[in-house]
Amino acid sequence: MKSLEKSDPKFLELNTRLTEIDDIESAAALLHWDQATYMPAGGAPARGRQLATLRQIAHEKFTDPVIGQLLEDLKPYEDSLSYDSNEASLIRIARLSYNRSVCVPASFMAELSQHRSASYEAWAKARPANDFTIVQPYLEKTLDLSRELAGFFPGYEHIADPLIDFSDADMKASTLRQIFSRLRQELVPIVEQITSQPAADDAFLHQHFPETKQLEFSRRIIERIGYDFKRGRQDKTLHPFMTRFSTGDVRITTRVYENDLGQGLFSSIHEAGHAMYEQGISREFEGTPLASGVSSGVHESQSRLWENLVGRSRGFWECFYPQLQGVFLRELGNISIHKFYRAINKVARSLIRTDADEVTYNLHVTIRFDLELAMLEGSLSVRDLPEAWNERYRSDLGLVPATDSEGVMQDVHWYSGVIGGMFQGYTLGNLMSAQFYETALNINPEIPVDIERGNFTSLHQWLQENIYQHGRKYTADELLERVTGSPLSVEPFIRYIRGKYSELYPM
Amino acid sequence: MKSLEKSDPKFLELNTRLTEIDDIESAAALLHWDQATYMPAGGAPARGRQLATLRQIAHEKFTDPVIGQLLEDLKPYEDSLSYDSNEASLIRIARLSYNRSVCVPASFMAELSQHRSASYEAWAKARPANDFTIVQPYLEKTLDLSRELAGFFPGYEHIADPLIDFSDADMKASTLRQIFSRLRQELVPIVEQITSQPAADDAFLHQHFPETKQLEFSRRIIERIGYDFKRGRQDKTLHPFMTRFSTGDVRITTRVYENDLGQGLFSSIHEAGHAMYEQGISREFEGTPLASGVSSGVHESQSRLWENLVGRSRGFWECFYPQLQGVFLRELGNISIHKFYRAINKVARSLIRTDADEVTYNLHVTIRFDLELAMLEGSLSVRDLPEAWNERYRSDLGLVPATDSEGVMQDVHWYSGVIGGMFQGYTLGNLMSAQFYETALNINPEIPVDIERGNFTSLHQWLQENIYQHGRKYTADELLERVTGSPLSVEPFIRYIRGKYSELYPM
Repeated sequence: MKSLEKSDPKFLELNTRLTEIDDIESAAALLHWDQATYMPAGGAPARGRQLATLRQIAHEKFTDPVIGQLLEDLKPYEDSLSYDSNEASLIRIARLSYNRSVCVPASFMAELSQHRSASYEAWAKARPANDFTIVQPYLEKTLDLSRELAGFFPGYEHIADPLIDFSDADMKASTLRQIFSRLRQELVPIVEQITSQPAADDAFLHQHFPETKQLEFSRRIIERIGYDFKRGRQDKTLHPFMTRFSTGDVRITTRVYENDLGQGLFSSIHEAGHAMYEQGISREFEGTPLASGVSSGVHESQSRLWENLVGRSRGFWECFYPQLQGVFLRELGNISIHKFYRAINKVARSLIRTDADEVTYNLHVTIRFDLELAMLEGSLSVRDLPEAWNERYRSDLGLVPATDSEGVMQDVHWYSGVIGGMFQGYTLGNLMSAQFYETALNINPEIPVDIERGNFTSLHQWLQENIYQHGRKYTADELLERVTGSPLSVEPFIRYIRGKYSELYPM
Repeated sequence: MKSLEKSDPKFLELNTRLTEIDDIESAAALLHWDQATYMPAGGAPARGRQLATLRQIAHEKFTDPVIGQLLEDLKPYEDSLSYDSNEASLIRIARLSYNRSVCVPASFMAELSQHRSASYEAWAKARPANDFTIVQPYLEKTLDLSRELAGFFPGYEHIADPLIDFSDADMKASTLRQIFSRLRQELVPIVEQITSQPAADDAFLHQHFPETKQLEFSRRIIERIGYDFKRGRQDKTLHPFMTRFSTGDVRITTRVYENDLGQGLFSSIHEAGHAMYEQGISREFEGTPLASGVSSGVHESQSRLWENLVGRSRGFWECFYPQLQGVFLRELGNISIHKFYRAINKVARSLIRTDADEVTYNLHVTIRFDLELAMLEGSLSVRDLPEAWNERYRSDLGLVPATDSEGVMQDVHWYSGVIGGMFQGYTLGNLMSAQFYETALNINPEIPVDIERGNFTSLHQWLQENIYQHGRKYTADELLERVTGSPLSVEPFIRYIRGKYSELYPM
């Protein structure tokens, strides 16, 4: 943190130590980015070891009792400052992370980390082979370890709560169940109504779109909406992601399918949404735990806001569609904007979460969330998971996967992470994106007009001021309350979906 | 190090610790590579800090007294093993580095590191402004710090010896003076004789050669000579370099000038020479201090061998020139191989070391080496350095730089390092390259014939077996004796130069 001349010496000491840890974590993030982008195949074995070493050192340094002592000694200093102050916030957030980290023995973390790698390897073989029995023993151990991990945080209401807390702090399984159940109740009839009508024609999105042209156009778009290439870059990877090495270096990756225009385009906007958030964090927080997004949910709200609420809006394409047609004249010259707009908002029951439209998407998430809870509670065994998965797809989406590869093995999360807390952030993000955006439009009704004109400054500035700059200073709940005046609610999302889709599909 | 089942437990402990340190150093190397290749400008401030943090941690871990104790405890174990064994070698080399590292206080290293950055910044401004007075105070401090650094190693014969020892262990200023003086004595009349004749015409190398085609051709060449792209890659940077993250990931960088065909081509072969050395180190040494080149001189011998003795040989181009002509048909279609061969071996008195041909190159080095010694001895002040530089260029090369930018400020070394030990490795490398290559040809006279046919296996295998695989196991002297049966000598290089250039320029 900068400008600390007048601070408590113990605060300075804490700050120095946290920055050192941030440096190590940023180095690990770069090793990972390199692994996904440019590393030659031969680098893999040593890279795994190097990453483990850096993470281990960062963990050791963060759980050093000296940090605990500093945090304790700094309590009176923290209490003397306002809750909102940068310094009090840093102490508060560091304490939260510290308390969480010291609960888990380093030996357990090492075991879990090793198991996650092994499990990922198994999944990478099992999925193309469509053989769930390969991953089953790994997943059983993952479930055991997930329970053990939760056990390090006694006093929970639901065994999933500590696991959810890792990515969406303060969220509880009981709250999520209520929210998700209300959401499902609203969405199922909407999906019903839409899919009873003729589907939008999106065949023209599957012509041949050369990679270079796609990349150039995506780049133009994300630069225009506010992603700063002087403080970032975009490279190709198998799976798109965003990663941050400092406020001045926040990178995104993308993938392009030459036979699917939407993939590269919307994933670029999605990752740029994540990245603009991190680029917008106050420079004061550089090198501290405040310099990241609040939670999985809030982060996803920023990517989905740009990808869906802006990037799949009619106004956005009023501005950009003529440009896109210019780039792909032969492919799109005869396609009207109305037809294009319908195609990029095609709603369909489908099997794959990552390809799902914004109406059905959350149904995919709630299925996974419920199955996670059932496994943790012990009411569902790993052995019965594929059948339970298929059953829920039949009941919620009216489809049954023909194979486990496009069923229970489609997502990497359980196979490279833990069971519990892996999916709720996606839906929380969708809900929050609508809640934030509704507020932004209430406060500045010019935003949609600006967007139609290709001017994203008003929206970008609103996000910068209300969300980006704060980094991790506030919890998700605090941020929602501060920005929207309300706690998390399903209603803005439902209003958004109804408003948008009733125009596309009379309801 | 692998396959250690039967080792002493303390050896295993040492090995584990050294691998952890190697992991951190490899991560730092990746941060540096990224900074030079893909990092956006905004990443610079944090990157400097992150690099400093990793290096500091590696230094702390390596100078941990526990390492010293392990090395002491392992002395009897080491003595029970043969000198050549991997384990004894690892203990021996680790002890050498450890003893060197603990001599220098961490606070001094931090000061030096900080000063080097500041000095580099000053040079980056002073050089384009052609203003030596900007760097003079920095260089004066560099000289003070260099003397102080040498002072941590009392008992030296010459104050430069400890500084030379950092990159070319066991080399002494007195030995180098003798060797360099003998070399200069031989070279000056050869340069005289050559430059009294009409210069080779290399104007055609300065036509327009598109970057992409140059990069493709260089890639083809270095892959053919044995650089393994599955365990490496080549990217563009301002200054070419080689860097190693593991035996499976040894990368090189290059730069291309569209109006100078030789630059990209020969610097690619040069860096590939460095990289093949590191790629060829025994996999047993992975993650240990044995997994690197012996010394600055031996490393340079491997790059220069490929760049000059192979890459600028007539036989090499008998194979590749038709291919090069095929790529640049319009530019080279009418240029005979003889004319091309003369052009890439043009000898000329010049001002810039990095552009110098292989005959005059060492004269540039000896100038710098003598000036370093004079400054360290106190017989030359930094203030008088530019004049002394110009005087030596007049006497040795018959040219005087018009500006300090193309004179005393041309090389980054003194401005980002120390004064002392910075340059001798280049000439040692040239000498050793000839000594090694002469031995290789004596043992396998088929090598040049193979090269003419585009077959580099015989040479590559000889290097692999005799040099690459050993990594840092032997000192430069030991390696020379083992491989060539003789200590370092000027004669093979002189024989090589006379042999090659008497054909090109009758002497």
